[in-house]
Amino acid sequence: EMALYKEPGRAGGGPTVNLYDLDSYTFGVCEAQLPKDTSAALPRLERHRASYEREGMRRGVDGVLLAHQHGHPFVLLFQMGESVWRLPGGKVRPGEDDPDGLARKLAKLLGPPEHASRWEPGDLLAAWWRPNFDNYLYPYCPPHITRPKECRRMFIVPLPQRAAFAVPRNLKLLAIPLFDLYDNRQTYGIYISSIPQFLSRFTLCCL
Amino acid sequence: EMALYKEPGRAGGGPTVNLYDLDSYTFGVCEAQLPKDTSAALPRLERHRASYEREGMRRGVDGVLLAHQHGHPFVLLFQMGESVWRLPGGKVRPGEDDPDGLARKLAKLLGPPEHASRWEPGDLLAAWWRPNFDNYLYPYCPPHITRPKECRRMFIVPLPQRAAFAVPRNLKLLAIPLFDLYDNRQTYGIYISSIPQFLSRFTLCCL
Ligand SMILES: [Zn+2]
Ligand SMILES: [Zn+2]
Ligand SMILES: [Zn+2]
Ligand SMILES: [Zn+2]
Repeated sequence: EMALYKEPGRAGGGPTVNLYDLDSYTFGVCEAQLPKDTSAALPRLERHRASYEREGMRRGVDGVLLAHQHGHPFVLLFQMGESVWRLPGGKVRPGEDDPDGLARKLAKLLGPPEHASRWEPGDLLAAWWRPNFDNYLYPYCPPHITRPKECRRMFIVPLPQRAAFAVPRNLKLLAIPLFDLYDNRQTYGIYISSIPQFLSRFTLCCL
Repeated sequence: EMALYKEPGRAGGGPTVNLYDLDSYTFGVCEAQLPKDTSAALPRLERHRASYEREGMRRGVDGVLLAHQHGHPFVLLFQMGESVWRLPGGKVRPGEDDPDGLARKLAKLLGPPEHASRWEPGDLLAAWWRPNFDNYLYPYCPPHITRPKECRRMFIVPLPQRAAFAVPRNLKLLAIPLFDLYDNRQTYGIYISSIPQFLSRFTLCCL
């Protein structure tokens, strides 16, 4: 593969992230693992209400894990049913910081990383707020919302050159190219379809 | 004004940017200044072709200048005619770096800054590519595009607490709230309507 993104004019100009060929990863299966926040809509919102009563604002975290095929960057996404897409991630525990919570969630959803103690979240890509107990996230918290119900942060998670993922058997992990996500809120929603914009400032090196 | 964005749960978590009240800025008028790259579509693309022959890929820069009203962040935009919106910015000269080019363009379009030698571009927000001589920008450069025609970078430009802008009399500078830009590609196009996402990682302090 040519490292096209290293050529002048092709790099975002910001921090460098190495992307390895998708073929260098293997995807195995492990026991079923229903992420608590991805089940049917009503129970999920009810659970959110209950945890808000106990712990206050939820802190959510999501990981953007990248690989490439022939120089096209791909993002790893879970497909839930036909039309719901999620990044690997979840809810941070009280007292836990965002990178620790995300590393814990990734180990649960993708298996533990090989040759390393944990998945290592890198740069912050975005923060989104959920003003109410519903499915709407916004990339800002309106000032009249004095008690947002969730703040959800998206981090880039650089992958090692090789890895064997262990995906819970009830989940479907797919690699989706940036060009399919871009401007495609119909399929992926605005949260996930904005990922190409968030990545644009990075210098993605396809190795 | 309350510094709402400083409260826990309201901050993006990334670098801090101070936003001052829109009322602390004045907007005067100076001589007409047609930015070269914002005239009618055909001549503009023809000019782009000609400069590409001479200088190769165009490097464009845009500044995101922020203020607030009652805790709502606003972005300064030029409205060209009825339906075209532009960030202040333009084309970088050969040999000039992006921040220098943007500072020069801002002085031309907004007047020189008071009490400072130049407008000072800050963090890189995004990079967009124009694969062909047309109006389509993408937040990545597809690998089969060996010679992109433009790379356009968006920078945040922190404003001083006070400033007197001098706006060319043929241009209309407006302050638009983030909540109006967000998810509004119909009005602003995807380039400008993505700005709320780019800003979400910052800790915007409304002072
Ligand atoms: Zn390959
Ligand atoms: Zn309001
Ligand atoms: Zn005010
Ligand atoms: Zn291709």
